[in-house]
Amino acid sequence: MTLSCPVPRVETERVLLGHGSGGQLMAELLAEVITPELGLTGPLEDAALIGLDQVFSTDSYVVTPRFFPGGDIGSLAVHGTVNDLAMRGARPIALSLAYIIEEGLPISELRDITHSAAAAAREVGVPIVTGDTKVVGHGAADGLYITTTGVGVRLRNAWPSAASAVPGDVVLVSGPIGRHGISILSAREGLGFEADVTSDSRPLHDLVAAMISAGGADVHVLRDPTRGGLASSLNEIAAASGVCVEIVEPAVPVPAPVAAACDLLGLDSLHVANEGCLVAFVAPASVDAVMAAMRALPEGAETTVIGEVTQGDPGRVLAHTLVGSSRIVDVLVGEQLPRIC
Amino acid sequence: MTLSCPVPRVETERVLLGHGSGGQLMAELLAEVITPELGLTGPLEDAALIGLDQVFSTDSYVVTPRFFPGGDIGSLAVHGTVNDLAMRGARPIALSLAYIIEEGLPISELRDITHSAAAAAREVGVPIVTGDTKVVGHGAADGLYITTTGVGVRLRNAWPSAASAVPGDVVLVSGPIGRHGISILSAREGLGFEADVTSDSRPLHDLVAAMISAGGADVHVLRDPTRGGLASSLNEIAAASGVCVEIVEPAVPVPAPVAAACDLLGLDSLHVANEGCLVAFVAPASVDAVMAAMRALPEGAETTVIGEVTQGDPGRVLAHTLVGSSRIVDVLVGEQLPRIC
Repeated sequence: MTLSCPVPRVETERVLLGHGSGGQLMAELLAEVITPELGLTGPLEDAALIGLDQVFSTDSYVVTPRFFPGGDIGSLAVHGTVNDLAMRGARPIALSLAYIIEEGLPISELRDITHSAAAAAREVGVPIVTGDTKVVGHGAADGLYITTTGVGVRLRNAWPSAASAVPGDVVLVSGPIGRHGISILSAREGLGFEADVTSDSRPLHDLVAAMISAGGADVHVLRDPTRGGLASSLNEIAAASGVCVEIVEPAVPVPAPVAAACDLLGLDSLHVANEGCLVAFVAPASVDAVMAAMRALPEGAETTVIGEVTQGDPGRVLAHTLVGSSRIVDVLVGEQLPRIC
Repeated sequence: MTLSCPVPRVETERVLLGHGSGGQLMAELLAEVITPELGLTGPLEDAALIGLDQVFSTDSYVVTPRFFPGGDIGSLAVHGTVNDLAMRGARPIALSLAYIIEEGLPISELRDITHSAAAAAREVGVPIVTGDTKVVGHGAADGLYITTTGVGVRLRNAWPSAASAVPGDVVLVSGPIGRHGISILSAREGLGFEADVTSDSRPLHDLVAAMISAGGADVHVLRDPTRGGLASSLNEIAAASGVCVEIVEPAVPVPAPVAAACDLLGLDSLHVANEGCLVAFVAPASVDAVMAAMRALPEGAETTVIGEVTQGDPGRVLAHTLVGSSRIVDVLVGEQLPRIC
């Protein structure tokens, strides 16, 4: 018999902020309102396939503040979409950029953000080939929203998917978690962590290319734990693959200032958003080679093993704690912190 | 010596509503702030090429009201992007859908709009393969904004581009102009034209396929005159191709209720937005075949010749009037009507 504490089901007839959290409410909105209408089935991946070798992904960026320690909405909009493509094992070949601008935005700010997006795209080596500019009246947006969409070409020899985890897989994270969410929160609320925590926003396509080059088809799952944090990504993978994921909580790399901020604010660092690290599920035979390849790159220098896939309850994520107990790692129910990306 | 009345240059340090109009201010914003940063050169087309045979286009939809006579923001977001692909001679193969939702939007409305977008995509035969959902706080958006991005595959034997018009080309429009803009204006302001004027929002990919099948490479230019209306499209084509476009004003099909509304409101019907007609520049040898193919389809049944490309001043658009005089057709300077699409 399995005992569990049911997630309180929030009934609502209107969209709540929590519907955008990447957590339980958002999953319900997608499952009940959006994906059935669109006929989307199967696991929700970071990007969709077009034909055999192309990948397609879109994301709107509504982060506030628009400039934060370690980045801005322009670079974030490029990194986020490049990373969504990379998580399906793809190299980006073209990006589009659609602006929704609130009347009154300083043109200098628009120029700075466009410059930042262009610089981020140049660094990745992907052209921004098309775009759109809409202006809405004062009070009908909050400064600037950006939607970037990317097309990528899949690297050969790997088919990473949230549905491909199997028992025995080793779970890796490529770097410390929680930096993006805490830096946004600190910048927005003036909490004073700004000097200690910068966003990890950065592109991960080179890291993924190195991983696939080293591990090929043994790289089963790639995911960047953005909204909803590592907890949401692990739960989505456990559910899509029908496996149990067990992590060792002290092995999860949480920078001291992030841990301090989470303690102070009552947040679980596993729920805090990231924009520059990934979680990977790799077959044991290739773990050493994949980790060596990751650690050879700056964005993977702190790669570490945090757990494994077991024969336990399908769909469940367990965290083993320092004192030898274990807990169920759940997804966020509602909203922890809106507009982080 | 050429006499001309210079367009007043509006200097501003902040983004104005008019920067999103599709007119002069928008062209300046793009040329001075956005395209140089992004390294985009050449004529701005409705969609960009990826490689040799693919086309990529993005558009954000911020129309208010979200439901209007003849459509809604969901179907418009599909038609608009399908049409942008079609104007580069492409058949759509995949769409993405990114929502920015204001907290408080009734979920029933979100369902209806998603249903409408899905139905429009099914009608076109293009799958919506991926999406994104962001929620922003009350007052940080106006209900719902949708960004759709599409990938298409080019039809063989034609390379339509705004830069390909040559003297001698015949200028066609596929149907009556001004319906979309006037229906939105009427619905928003309660002007009472709603019963007489519905939006022309509809997909044009089949029409384009029929045109290219009949005319091949003789179909030099295709453009859907959305924001900024027919006047903006003709001016963009004249500028990109370095040619003079001369139209016969009484030949431009303006439905009587649209003409009446324009008279009443002091609008130029050539500046009013459309979402379901196109302007085409076709070499004379193929005009009869292309027009016959267009008229065989409901969306092209009212195709008519409105003018031709001449050896006149490059970049100029002239309209010959009933009384035998002619006038320069200019682009909109600022904003005629915001948030029409």
